[in-house]
Amino acid sequence: MMRACEIDPGAGDGRIYHVERPTPEPGQGEVLIRLGAASLNYRDLLVMQNFYNAPPGREIPLSDGAGRIVATGPDVPEERIGQRVAAAFFPDWQRGAITATARGRSFGANLPGMLAEYAVVPAHAAIEVPPHLSDEEAATLPCAGLTAWTALCEAAQLRPGMSVLLLGSGGVSVMALQFAKIMGLRVIQTTSSPAKRARLLELGADEVIDYTAEPDWHQAVRRLTGGDGVDAVVEIGGTGTLTNSALSVRTGGTIVCVGFVTEGQGLDPKLIVGRAIRLIGISVGSCEGFAEMNRAIALHKMRPVVDRVFAMEQAEEAFALMRAGGHFGKVVISIAPAGGG
Amino acid sequence: MMRACEIDPGAGDGRIYHVERPTPEPGQGEVLIRLGAASLNYRDLLVMQNFYNAPPGREIPLSDGAGRIVATGPDVPEERIGQRVAAAFFPDWQRGAITATARGRSFGANLPGMLAEYAVVPAHAAIEVPPHLSDEEAATLPCAGLTAWTALCEAAQLRPGMSVLLLGSGGVSVMALQFAKIMGLRVIQTTSSPAKRARLLELGADEVIDYTAEPDWHQAVRRLTGGDGVDAVVEIGGTGTLTNSALSVRTGGTIVCVGFVTEGQGLDPKLIVGRAIRLIGISVGSCEGFAEMNRAIALHKMRPVVDRVFAMEQAEEAFALMRAGGHFGKVVISIAPAGGG
Amino acid sequence: MMRACEIDPGAGDGRIYHVERPTPEPGQGEVLIRLGAASLNYRDLLVMQNFYNAPPGREIPLSDGAGRIVATGPDVPEERIGQRVAAAFFPDWQRGAITATARGRSFGANLPGMLAEYAVVPAHAAIEVPPHLSDEEAATLPCAGLTAWTALCEAAQLRPGMSVLLLGSGGVSVMALQFAKIMGLRVIQTTSSPAKRARLLELGADEVIDYTAEPDWHQAVRRLTGGDGVDAVVEIGGTGTLTNSALSVRTGGTIVCVGFVTEGQGLDPKLIVGRAIRLIGISVGSCEGFAEMNRAIALHKMRPVVDRVFAMEQAEEAFALMRAGGHFGKVVISIAPAGGG
Amino acid sequence: MMRACEIDPGAGDGRIYHVERPTPEPGQGEVLIRLGAASLNYRDLLVMQNFYNAPPGREIPLSDGAGRIVATGPDVPEERIGQRVAAAFFPDWQRGAITATARGRSFGANLPGMLAEYAVVPAHAAIEVPPHLSDEEAATLPCAGLTAWTALCEAAQLRPGMSVLLLGSGGVSVMALQFAKIMGLRVIQTTSSPAKRARLLELGADEVIDYTAEPDWHQAVRRLTGGDGVDAVVEIGGTGTLTNSALSVRTGGTIVCVGFVTEGQGLDPKLIVGRAIRLIGISVGSCEGFAEMNRAIALHKMRPVVDRVFAMEQAEEAFALMRAGGHFGKVVISIAPAGGG
Repeated sequence: MMRACEIDPGAGDGRIYHVERPTPEPGQGEVLIRLGAASLNYRDLLVMQNFYNAPPGREIPLSDGAGRIVATGPDVPEERIGQRVAAAFFPDWQRGAITATARGRSFGANLPGMLAEYAVVPAHAAIEVPPHLSDEEAATLPCAGLTAWTALCEAAQLRPGMSVLLLGSGGVSVMALQFAKIMGLRVIQTTSSPAKRARLLELGADEVIDYTAEPDWHQAVRRLTGGDGVDAVVEIGGTGTLTNSALSVRTGGTIVCVGFVTEGQGLDPKLIVGRAIRLIGISVGSCEGFAEMNRAIALHKMRPVVDRVFAMEQAEEAFALMRAGGHFGKVVISIAPAGGG
Repeated sequence: MMRACEIDPGAGDGRIYHVERPTPEPGQGEVLIRLGAASLNYRDLLVMQNFYNAPPGREIPLSDGAGRIVATGPDVPEERIGQRVAAAFFPDWQRGAITATARGRSFGANLPGMLAEYAVVPAHAAIEVPPHLSDEEAATLPCAGLTAWTALCEAAQLRPGMSVLLLGSGGVSVMALQFAKIMGLRVIQTTSSPAKRARLLELGADEVIDYTAEPDWHQAVRRLTGGDGVDAVVEIGGTGTLTNSALSVRTGGTIVCVGFVTEGQGLDPKLIVGRAIRLIGISVGSCEGFAEMNRAIALHKMRPVVDRVFAMEQAEEAFALMRAGGHFGKVVISIAPAGGG
Repeated sequence: MMRACEIDPGAGDGRIYHVERPTPEPGQGEVLIRLGAASLNYRDLLVMQNFYNAPPGREIPLSDGAGRIVATGPDVPEERIGQRVAAAFFPDWQRGAITATARGRSFGANLPGMLAEYAVVPAHAAIEVPPHLSDEEAATLPCAGLTAWTALCEAAQLRPGMSVLLLGSGGVSVMALQFAKIMGLRVIQTTSSPAKRARLLELGADEVIDYTAEPDWHQAVRRLTGGDGVDAVVEIGGTGTLTNSALSVRTGGTIVCVGFVTEGQGLDPKLIVGRAIRLIGISVGSCEGFAEMNRAIALHKMRPVVDRVFAMEQAEEAFALMRAGGHFGKVVISIAPAGGG
Repeated sequence: MMRACEIDPGAGDGRIYHVERPTPEPGQGEVLIRLGAASLNYRDLLVMQNFYNAPPGREIPLSDGAGRIVATGPDVPEERIGQRVAAAFFPDWQRGAITATARGRSFGANLPGMLAEYAVVPAHAAIEVPPHLSDEEAATLPCAGLTAWTALCEAAQLRPGMSVLLLGSGGVSVMALQFAKIMGLRVIQTTSSPAKRARLLELGADEVIDYTAEPDWHQAVRRLTGGDGVDAVVEIGGTGTLTNSALSVRTGGTIVCVGFVTEGQGLDPKLIVGRAIRLIGISVGSCEGFAEMNRAIALHKMRPVVDRVFAMEQAEEAFALMRAGGHFGKVVISIAPAGGG
């Protein structure tokens, strides 16, 4: 038996159940992971609100977790036991371009999630994490980390010296800042407080715009870029920010749409046509992309920014913090005595 | 002196003035074209409505015209005299990716247009047209032709056997149909009447959907593609059709936004993120793209579809037909005894 | 038991053994194919000469075959029984870019080949063939067909109206001619006889060069392209033709290297640097590419060109024809009463 | 009058003439640059040996120089006077992909070079240099800098964490090392001495291989990359190193060919086909690429590595050092009291 949390997405009541349930066993082509930590994403709030129309019933939430392989299925090499890994967000998306099939299944939605002591995942989707990271840090990578990576390294076509606009200081945007600096980009980032501003600058942001002081922040972005606009935006906001983002990007530039955490009016395509903007929707990334990202993180000894670590018993508080917003970086839940770095 | 038509964009009154004005003279790096025909685009209606905030004053309208070089500026080789050419839509966009500068000037907007007996254009922007085409046919190429070409050959990444959705039977969509067949694509096209349906099939459309009979035509598109959706859409409609288009394209597919001829609600980015759609705005194309397109048209002896040819004296009627819609292919104005093909 | 041919690559003696051996059974994730036909490639001659350093022992040769699924492994849906399929050349290369692992195993080399009544292949690598093709025609697709497809549709970046140079009239080059016409390209092809010239023109070649009459055929290519050279070459020849190919391609153009059937001096990189040529080696293609190609072949009702069909008992003659060269299109071996189109 | 050096390429005698000749005047669309420094490239040795078949007569050598605009032609804005600039290597290649025309003219070959007090260049090809650099540093950018930039940022498709192999410590390779670190790449570099090894490590190289100790250095590269090989090579060597480079790159990897400073056997295309290698020839880069590179250098306050600065009177010594090899970074000639950084 193992400890786990469960939610009932179909009920949409936001309730978390602390349960004991049987420890799963790895089947053909699978491994069993002893999880050390899990992390929360905005997507997990959507799951809880039943945005994805889940089938009725209780399920373990959270897509993101990291730990150690402790058992392998019949045809998986036993050498993998002991590896420190995290499960890829979309286990069926091994490589290549996204397809409907590739993004058909994800952990914490239609597959059991990571807020538990153990999880079973396909062996090919259990990706080694950078050795210098703790489980708490590594648990931030599968969704927010890979989303930021895919946005900057695959969707946008960026060269050193180009400029990228990042919105706020949630998980994806802080990770995108860290990757952008590794790639040699100039980063302009929005924020709402002097304290966050200071931290963003410390992490390498070249310029920070206070969007509360300047609600039409696209004007500040234009000023900072000689009137042209940035080469790319990692757009997490959705309808609430997309128009401002479209006005912030240069002619021929790219907006990578990765989320929709705010509400507002839809985008007028005139903005897209007239200035020949590319609006690229992305959805996390592939197993291969995850491994590539981890190689880069390991080379650069990059450390993801963790806002706060909760115990498993405090899962409700972790979700509450996520819902309230205002965190800087990632919200993490520790599951077991952490290994690693 | 030459005959010309003028409009007053700033007045926004839609009035056309039939005038005589001095024949322009080619300066340094320029050529003088004796125009044989011009063609209308939806964009010319926008110019007339002052969508682009023109400076006050009267100007010659229309971006598109074709004719013969009859004089060259001081430093342009005289061998060019006699060449049959059309002016590139954006004369400052010679090659490479679009920039704000590249699309800064266009004929019939902030440069004198083509509804006149003569036009002066930069020598590098006077592009040879395919020899088998009449001036009436060649005059359809600079805006609608190149837009369709850029959409299919540059913005979308298409291989033979892939499917593309085209909307209606205006200038861009009919030209896109012809290019798509040359590229080996499967074409699904929407239309509103059995007569147009028959003509689209004749031109090679693989399937035609009557959007009046099926207003949620994305369902028909899905049915025809095994539930997946098409690989790409050439989206001319704007807010009135964009949501339907987004529901018609497969996960990971491309919508090339080339126009906004209809009104409706803005696009909800959730549609873009969830299914990882690429929404690519384009704006006509470069001088180099124009030359490449003409090479392909010449190789395939492709003939643009002209709905109706008006005389210069009937310019009002040509604009009225454009405004009313319902044309199939291009609306053309003949200016002089045609040369060519 | 089933009839099969075997060779002993390590012996390098070119001998073919006509044997009976146990019909294989499909395991986990596999299907059993009743083969209707197989086809030969230059690569099969290399296997026979032990170019690939095979382990000792006899094995069934040939990478290419087509037939019908007659049984499925334990976890493969029985609905697949009856499907007409061909095995992908590299069964481990499902999609995405090539890797060492992806091209680790291939049929007729380190996996049992297709010159037998039955073959077992992974279910995901048993790709449906176009329904209008006979087994003899479909058997030409896995190696030569996909190589030509990958060369033109993935490695080179070609738009309609661009020109491509094809060498001779072997399997890859004839298939490339057919694909090039579907893509709207201009084809310049070399050949050695008036009879072949006539057939190439019939298949749509725009210009044919007799390389026996003009050994420095790059001069003819230049003449036909206004002195510039072609946009791309599908280079099958290797050292014997590569220099001529490099002199035939335009500055900034692409040479896709797919084979090395001739001998000669190595390439001087000065030719590559000075004119900024891209030399792209490719190795057949992925399972996903195979499916895409078949979709295009089906849409266009394209029929591969078969030079001659031998019976299984005449395998020696088939290999002899392949070795002698001079065939036009593909050399095929019929295995069973053919199904299909 | 101005001081200048001249060579007689057609004579191929390597002699340098120290002369006075009339200061050139900027014509239509041109600017006059007061040069502060020039730098040498391997290409300048080739010019001197008449590798490029120059017309008879004496000409000013060197493609690379930096200085300040001191006069403008009739139609060039006077505001440009005072700008610190360097001339783009190919002044006719403004943007987009390379063409024969784009690379038709270059300074120090068929246009007067930079080893003089003044040079006239087209205004669009006089590119602003990063303000923190001295003229000596800025003079290293047009050929070696842009070649390294184009190789890494355009020809190869690299993401952070990927590995690149660089050969030796000449101008291009040292600059490539600096750019590679800005891009977040892992750098493996070859060298011949412990002293150079130390300097490469200081500049950020992750691993250095002594190619004198290990002539088959591809084996060391393989060892360092888990047997796979690197993702990309910037190949400066030509026939003398290309085979080793091909054995050092992973399946599906890229070799960017930028030079041919060594002699040896040609490349066997079997190496390219079998492992699906992309061999990309490049030729410096465009004006737009030059401006992009300078933006990156300015953002990162990167400083090019200058091996040694000679006075104009010592031009013979500068050429001798270039010819002897063994320099680390760039060989520079100071022309005037330097401005800048």
